[in-house]
Amino acid sequence: MTLDAAHIAYLTGHHQGRLATLAPDGTPQNKPVGYRYNPGTATIDIAGQNMEQSAKYRNIAAHPDVAFVVDDAAGAGAAGMRFLEIRGRAEGTVPDRPGREPGLGAHIIRIHPRRIISWNIDPERPGLQARNLAD
Amino acid sequence: MTLDAAHIAYLTGHHQGRLATLAPDGTPQNKPVGYRYNPGTATIDIAGQNMEQSAKYRNIAAHPDVAFVVDDAAGAGAAGMRFLEIRGRAEGTVPDRPGREPGLGAHIIRIHPRRIISWNIDPERPGLQARNLAD
Repeated sequence: MTLDAAHIAYLTGHHQGRLATLAPDGTPQNKPVGYRYNPGTATIDIAGQNMEQSAKYRNIAAHPDVAFVVDDAAGAGAAGMRFLEIRGRAEGTVPDRPGREPGLGAHIIRIHPRRIISWNIDPERPGLQARNLAD
Repeated sequence: MTLDAAHIAYLTGHHQGRLATLAPDGTPQNKPVGYRYNPGTATIDIAGQNMEQSAKYRNIAAHPDVAFVVDDAAGAGAAGMRFLEIRGRAEGTVPDRPGREPGLGAHIIRIHPRRIISWNIDPERPGLQARNLAD
């Protein structure tokens, strides 16, 4: 079981999210990151300048659990808010990506989704959804 | 020592951020939240509907360490990106707030900043800044 179509459409239509990782002492850190949804691996792939030297890249080597959130406002107030939170296991890797953007390093953080929590993402099922995915 | 003027100006000029908390098992969670900077207490105050019943509110009771990030794009690409990450200790509280927005509950999450990491927030000091605050 993977992400469903509404979640994939939302992830594909956005390019920035916020990634929470755990420092070596177990306390959280949170950073804005660019990402793309990778349909081939069903993962969230996060590239960046000097990625392999970043704290978040080191963090996931010690603590692979992460929480990544993408959100926007489709209308006014709390009712118009939408978000998709992906909790899962992250790994540092060097993918074979011929289409890599210039200026970004070879290393990426790749998130394998384990649990999805969303709000107003699927037009046919407004409000809260939460479900676990197979690892 | 508290937040400096450039950081306070940035926080005051924005109203939404993303809050990373720790679940009881120590794994991270990440949610978009509305906030305001409270100059009286030098804290980040986060209100919400049914706040006291939310997972994040319960999370901070068990693990008070949080990471809160506010970001935006002031220009194109990575060079135009700005962010302010606040790591600190969060508490659930019921403040005396006569100006509370209708529809929001009495309970708030209040973050006491402990460490600030920022990027391009202070026009006089572009790039990365990081410093610890007194508890």
